[in-house]
Amino acid sequence: MAADLDAVLARADAQLDASLGRLFDFLRIPSISTDPAYQNECERAAQWAAARLEECGFKAEIRPTTGHPMVVAHHDGAGPDAPHVLYYGHYDVQPPDPLDLWQTGPFDPVLVDGPHGKRIVARGAVDDKGQVMMFFEAFRAWHEATGNLPCRVTVFLEGEEECGSPSLLPFLEANKDELSKPDVAVVCDTGMWDVNTPAITTMLRGMAYTEVKLTGPSRDLHSGLYGGSALNPINALTRILGGLTDEQGRIQLPGFYDGVEERPMEQKAAWDALGFDEAAFLADVGLSHPVGEAQRPALERLWARPTADVNGIWGGYTGPGSKTVIPSEAFAKVSFRLVKGQDHKQIVKAFQQFCDERAPADAKVEVMDLHGAPAMEVPLDLPQLDAARKALADEFGKPAVMVGSGGSVPVVEQMKRVLGLDSILMGFGLADDQIHSPNEKFEQVCYHRGLRSNARLLAALAEK
Amino acid sequence: MAADLDAVLARADAQLDASLGRLFDFLRIPSISTDPAYQNECERAAQWAAARLEECGFKAEIRPTTGHPMVVAHHDGAGPDAPHVLYYGHYDVQPPDPLDLWQTGPFDPVLVDGPHGKRIVARGAVDDKGQVMMFFEAFRAWHEATGNLPCRVTVFLEGEEECGSPSLLPFLEANKDELSKPDVAVVCDTGMWDVNTPAITTMLRGMAYTEVKLTGPSRDLHSGLYGGSALNPINALTRILGGLTDEQGRIQLPGFYDGVEERPMEQKAAWDALGFDEAAFLADVGLSHPVGEAQRPALERLWARPTADVNGIWGGYTGPGSKTVIPSEAFAKVSFRLVKGQDHKQIVKAFQQFCDERAPADAKVEVMDLHGAPAMEVPLDLPQLDAARKALADEFGKPAVMVGSGGSVPVVEQMKRVLGLDSILMGFGLADDQIHSPNEKFEQVCYHRGLRSNARLLAALAEK
Repeated sequence: MAADLDAVLARADAQLDASLGRLFDFLRIPSISTDPAYQNECERAAQWAAARLEECGFKAEIRPTTGHPMVVAHHDGAGPDAPHVLYYGHYDVQPPDPLDLWQTGPFDPVLVDGPHGKRIVARGAVDDKGQVMMFFEAFRAWHEATGNLPCRVTVFLEGEEECGSPSLLPFLEANKDELSKPDVAVVCDTGMWDVNTPAITTMLRGMAYTEVKLTGPSRDLHSGLYGGSALNPINALTRILGGLTDEQGRIQLPGFYDGVEERPMEQKAAWDALGFDEAAFLADVGLSHPVGEAQRPALERLWARPTADVNGIWGGYTGPGSKTVIPSEAFAKVSFRLVKGQDHKQIVKAFQQFCDERAPADAKVEVMDLHGAPAMEVPLDLPQLDAARKALADEFGKPAVMVGSGGSVPVVEQMKRVLGLDSILMGFGLADDQIHSPNEKFEQVCYHRGLRSNARLLAALAEK
Repeated sequence: MAADLDAVLARADAQLDASLGRLFDFLRIPSISTDPAYQNECERAAQWAAARLEECGFKAEIRPTTGHPMVVAHHDGAGPDAPHVLYYGHYDVQPPDPLDLWQTGPFDPVLVDGPHGKRIVARGAVDDKGQVMMFFEAFRAWHEATGNLPCRVTVFLEGEEECGSPSLLPFLEANKDELSKPDVAVVCDTGMWDVNTPAITTMLRGMAYTEVKLTGPSRDLHSGLYGGSALNPINALTRILGGLTDEQGRIQLPGFYDGVEERPMEQKAAWDALGFDEAAFLADVGLSHPVGEAQRPALERLWARPTADVNGIWGGYTGPGSKTVIPSEAFAKVSFRLVKGQDHKQIVKAFQQFCDERAPADAKVEVMDLHGAPAMEVPLDLPQLDAARKALADEFGKPAVMVGSGGSVPVVEQMKRVLGLDSILMGFGLADDQIHSPNEKFEQVCYHRGLRSNARLLAALAEK
């Protein structure tokens, strides 16, 4: 196996340019899942991915859903007694807007120079097409160097991760027998500690994502003729949302912190020992003062404390010039990052109650539950974690750190609940990758070492 | 003159349908001044108006400005000793959006049935094309019935009233000699007390209209990776704007009420005697609870107290579905209706100070002054007011009431300041005309009696 792995890694290194060419092909497909106008592009991305897996000896299928299709592929060449691993990723991407802030076309991938060498710039470069291609290309290296994979492998790609994964749970439930066969899942959608230090993510925040509609007058009004008498829905909405937190950063929804426990002292100490430089983290995005709960350390605020963010707001006249209108309606998208002990459906109810309690007379507030997921923690005694630690330590020459993540990967919770699978979250993004933002990038060195780490992981899992 | 007037009114009645046809032609021109895409349509509306005045014996000119052109026309047929009146109106209209709430095309005028008979439905039906056509058609009736007008008349139309009139003041200053010759101005852009009761407006609120931009992080961020550490500009903006008023409806800008005086007791008593039914006024737009300063009577809040309204707000992701973004920027359009004693430039400064004082660390708030005008009061002892009162009393069989208006007509203040002209604000709109809103309408009966009132006004002014 050691000799095999050396050949596989040599093959991966030799084929790096060709591998990047394939990644660029994938990135050129604008598979924006949240916008119905791009439905065909999502379908095309799924088909493209399935075709690449077939090239590596997989039997791959496009499985329709009521939304965007799933890709499910199996490689059983390692035989019935070999360990069986499920690789999860997503082929869809976030919308690229605001378009005018991109230095190059979001779907015209380029390599540009950066402090760590070349970087890949495109929407989806790291979230998640680049990370998907790391394991695709690890399979290809094994396939081309040895004619087989060392483990049984199931690949499961969805196309709705960036729009709340509405088809995921029904699909997992409908295909439970097939997808629950693997021993463990590997989820490739997270980050490293820094460019030289690998990380395994063992905590993920949950999510309650809502859209709020506040209705006041039955029609738009002239602010001169009605101002001083008629309710203004935007004024009312800002008053409600402006009170989401108190001066100490505590979120004001009723019962919001019920069930949220303090983290163990040893975990807090381990996080402190990581020496996270929040000032540098914020300076990188032009900020100098942290928000969130006062007195809490940065990593606790980012990984283990809930948040309330208004992700979008709109209402009234927003074009050029001026319009003296009191609109009939105002809207916002408001999301809450959740931690262990919080129920996302209960949080949506608490938010509706919060709005109702603060809404002025005549204001009708509707809170719509767009999607949600509970927070998730991966057991530290999961046997396959050792294989992942070995693969990363061998590749990087130093141990991986165990981190939390402020983002949500709802599939981890759903695969545990429906399939009984624990997940190893082994990803290679960096904090400055600008995911979901203009000029998203992925360091080529991270891509390359991530590809090699995945090749190593298959060997390490096979040795168990 | 009395015989002449009878013939003129008979002519106006006989030609009502033809007059409505001309109004519909005017309404079909989408002269949206705030949107540069409609520049040619504004030019076309100006030319259309000038051509109609030429038909009535005027010498009419299109005068270019750096924005949309002015229409200036003179009719000197009454001779050098006749009274000289300037009629002001505007040919531009508000944007029609939200388009999907219109029951018919905003620029496809129709007559529909209503409780007061037929009503004209179109953008600009009453604000201000319909009111402009009332005096155009009064001129036409005089011209066709008598071959002349009883007064010297200057017509002055602008095309930027709905976007803050940026060219108005420079134009008045540049053409001061020509435009200051009339004895008085008649401004046709206000309303009646009710469908049977004419009104002359003697108080107008002023305006300070601003656009606010709040900048936080240097780029859009992922709310999972940064939530709990990075400033969210939308959260910050809602917090600032949510504090515009206190629980009693008092506006919180520093020094906002400095210089605002209590109205005289006799004026408050006269307003109380009007028996304004605020409950019905609000019920008409689906509301039941007045906002504004608690304890103040409705007409005082609407006419004589300042306001703070958010007219538009936008930021972050506002498309379908969800996007977990902390945006870099958030925006709002915020306007203040002003009363006597308030300086609009000072109010913009106070708003900037208000924002700066409440902005969190790292938030940069820019308040842009889009346009402004002071409040205006018309002297009750103006001699020509008697002519207007007589014209309205003769037409309606009851005296006109002297009212305030919550809206701004900045031209009134500018014509007084630059030209030395007082204004008679004699308009025929109703409170439910939905100006600036979808399905704007003008009652045909108001149009007809307004046309006749303008014909009478020319006779009454000539008799002075």
